[in-house]
Amino acid sequence: MPPPRAWVVSVGSELLDGRVREANSHEVLSALIRIGMEVERVVVLPDRVEPLAEVLREALGRVDAVVVTGGLGPTPDDLTRDAISLATGRPLEQDEASAEAILSLYRAAGRPPPPGSLRQAHIPAGSRVIRAVGTAPGFVVEERGTRIYCLPGVPREMRTMMERDVLPELRTALAPRLGPRPREGLVVAGLTESEVAERLEPLKSEFPGLDISYLAVPGEIRVELSLPSGGEDHLARAGRRAREVLGRNLVKGGLVEEVARLLLGRGETLAVAESLTGGWVGRLLTSPAGSSGFFLGGVIAYSTRAKEKLLGVSREVLAAGAVSREVVLAMADGVRQRFGAVWGLATTGAAGPEPHHGAPPGAFWVGVSGPATLARFLQVGVEREVVRELAARVALDLLRRALLGEEE
Amino acid sequence: MPPPRAWVVSVGSELLDGRVREANSHEVLSALIRIGMEVERVVVLPDRVEPLAEVLREALGRVDAVVVTGGLGPTPDDLTRDAISLATGRPLEQDEASAEAILSLYRAAGRPPPPGSLRQAHIPAGSRVIRAVGTAPGFVVEERGTRIYCLPGVPREMRTMMERDVLPELRTALAPRLGPRPREGLVVAGLTESEVAERLEPLKSEFPGLDISYLAVPGEIRVELSLPSGGEDHLARAGRRAREVLGRNLVKGGLVEEVARLLLGRGETLAVAESLTGGWVGRLLTSPAGSSGFFLGGVIAYSTRAKEKLLGVSREVLAAGAVSREVVLAMADGVRQRFGAVWGLATTGAAGPEPHHGAPPGAFWVGVSGPATLARFLQVGVEREVVRELAARVALDLLRRALLGEEE
Repeated sequence: MPPPRAWVVSVGSELLDGRVREANSHEVLSALIRIGMEVERVVVLPDRVEPLAEVLREALGRVDAVVVTGGLGPTPDDLTRDAISLATGRPLEQDEASAEAILSLYRAAGRPPPPGSLRQAHIPAGSRVIRAVGTAPGFVVEERGTRIYCLPGVPREMRTMMERDVLPELRTALAPRLGPRPREGLVVAGLTESEVAERLEPLKSEFPGLDISYLAVPGEIRVELSLPSGGEDHLARAGRRAREVLGRNLVKGGLVEEVARLLLGRGETLAVAESLTGGWVGRLLTSPAGSSGFFLGGVIAYSTRAKEKLLGVSREVLAAGAVSREVVLAMADGVRQRFGAVWGLATTGAAGPEPHHGAPPGAFWVGVSGPATLARFLQVGVEREVVRELAARVALDLLRRALLGEEE
Repeated sequence: MPPPRAWVVSVGSELLDGRVREANSHEVLSALIRIGMEVERVVVLPDRVEPLAEVLREALGRVDAVVVTGGLGPTPDDLTRDAISLATGRPLEQDEASAEAILSLYRAAGRPPPPGSLRQAHIPAGSRVIRAVGTAPGFVVEERGTRIYCLPGVPREMRTMMERDVLPELRTALAPRLGPRPREGLVVAGLTESEVAERLEPLKSEFPGLDISYLAVPGEIRVELSLPSGGEDHLARAGRRAREVLGRNLVKGGLVEEVARLLLGRGETLAVAESLTGGWVGRLLTSPAGSSGFFLGGVIAYSTRAKEKLLGVSREVLAAGAVSREVVLAMADGVRQRFGAVWGLATTGAAGPEPHHGAPPGAFWVGVSGPATLARFLQVGVEREVVRELAARVALDLLRRALLGEEE
């Protein structure tokens, strides 16, 4: 039996005039594939009624689901609701619960709701509301056997609604036809994408039909192993082999999640000293709720004087050059002592495009101080913001390795 | 006269099954926009004949150009040639020069041409070859007034053919109609998307043909005004009116850029104290090169003890509740003094999902200390990471307003 089919539609004039690189469709299609659907087409359309209505008319009665993201905001250029209404012949009606939720948000903020804000509560007759994450609710409507899901284009809101509402509903509704391809996801740190591929690709000859996909963000590679339906046992064995060849480069969950789990498990605390990354490490560490259980805080020591005065790095050490093993370890040690933390973690380097205290752009040190001392140097040839993001994750990975008992 | 219109089609099953993130379409559309075309639609399709033929049939006679990338290789799943043949009714014919070029590449490599390699020299009757960069030639065919350009999916080959052949040809062919649409971008802070629309939409009746699009990230709204070709004077006047009605909510450049420009212009320095945002403000401030000219650093004071010990916030003040006007101003003042900076900027609040020191999730204070003292409270109903990103930008906006002389 062929798998259920879907189209993915991303709406927004900013996606077609070069201002914003379209990204939602890849997330949506990855999620649909994950539950065993086949995505037949991705379409990116401007904020206009007719083109979207046209694409929907083509899809109705032909595919099982269309997921539309974008065009659900309050401004007059948000026209997804109108397009669905036109394509399905269903008039727009106000959903009273959504209208009340929007009004109460403005009441809480002590501001009058601006005109148009209630447009976000208008949905095609007979559709069902998908509860809002921000202010814009989504909705789903079924027409000629095709479910049309409309979600806001804001990535976080879209993502939450996909996971919380759309995927569970599709799983239930399409269950008999979903033979999900068994999949296993792995997160890897400390290797480049090519190095990960070099280690994992040979598994394909051991496990026929094994498919491996790679997705890299600076400092973290997400790998997905998958096999045709029915290959669960095979996949479990392939996963074990993959974990073997990756060794300590395999991250459990994600970098922040594993560091948090290890620190909370031991009841140990952490403070950070950031030069190059300017707050990025702290921002990542405080991203999950509950990080206050181990994270005490940190010092953003962007100037040399701050490294000296707030972290106690001595002038003699600083004279060795701000981008050095000595300085990064003195920063880690200084912040650990200032905060009374068990562990200190530090970054220093040259983000570019200019050299910094004699270090070439893309050169950086990360260092850990505490029950173990570790430092690592990298020199990369990428742009400023990528150097900074990479350094933040390389620092977290170094701490993870120190917590796992790795030595220099 | 409206600009010439194009569709961009990207072909490849690997783009729809999650293995590869589609990227060619953004490059192609950016290039087409650069020469003054309007891209109406992007479509991603699998390696199958029918869906591509269907999309092409819809485009023929309706748009000026369709640029198709992918599906021109030698393997049996490369079917773009067949789809064009089906959609235009033109049989495939072997282009002898292309065939000879392919054979000579294999002769030079001392290898026999693999089966199917001459398929790459088959093009629809009446089309014109676009010389190969690798082994796959491209081609262009005109049907019902629509030019269909077919290019290989390999990014480097696609890019060379776009620049060398497609863009120059389109520029010449469409010259009289290519007048880039005048555009003006504005950045707004301190208003919601609906409030911005409420102020700007009335301009549409003053300036017929004016198009306004909105793009919101937490704490910043990007607005683009545009008018049909030839409306430069009109647009300049519309821009002036927009700036008038936005007043101080208009940000020059972006929040970080304007803050940096104001501080560097006065030779004043800044330090930050972050609780809720955990480093996000510092990360934003250090994003552009040259921020070390005004940004000294900061303290991530995630724990109460850090607020007390590293920022000198007194227990009496902290007793008022960590999420309070008193605490945020004491944090800003403390970090300003510790770093010897002219300005101090601070955040404190409850990111959620749980309340924090009695403050409900989504409640936060930002504060500025220095030549002027300002504080602002917000209570929003969004998820944890959005609260944090919003608070970081609201803090930068408060500093911007203080630098512009705004008072409480």
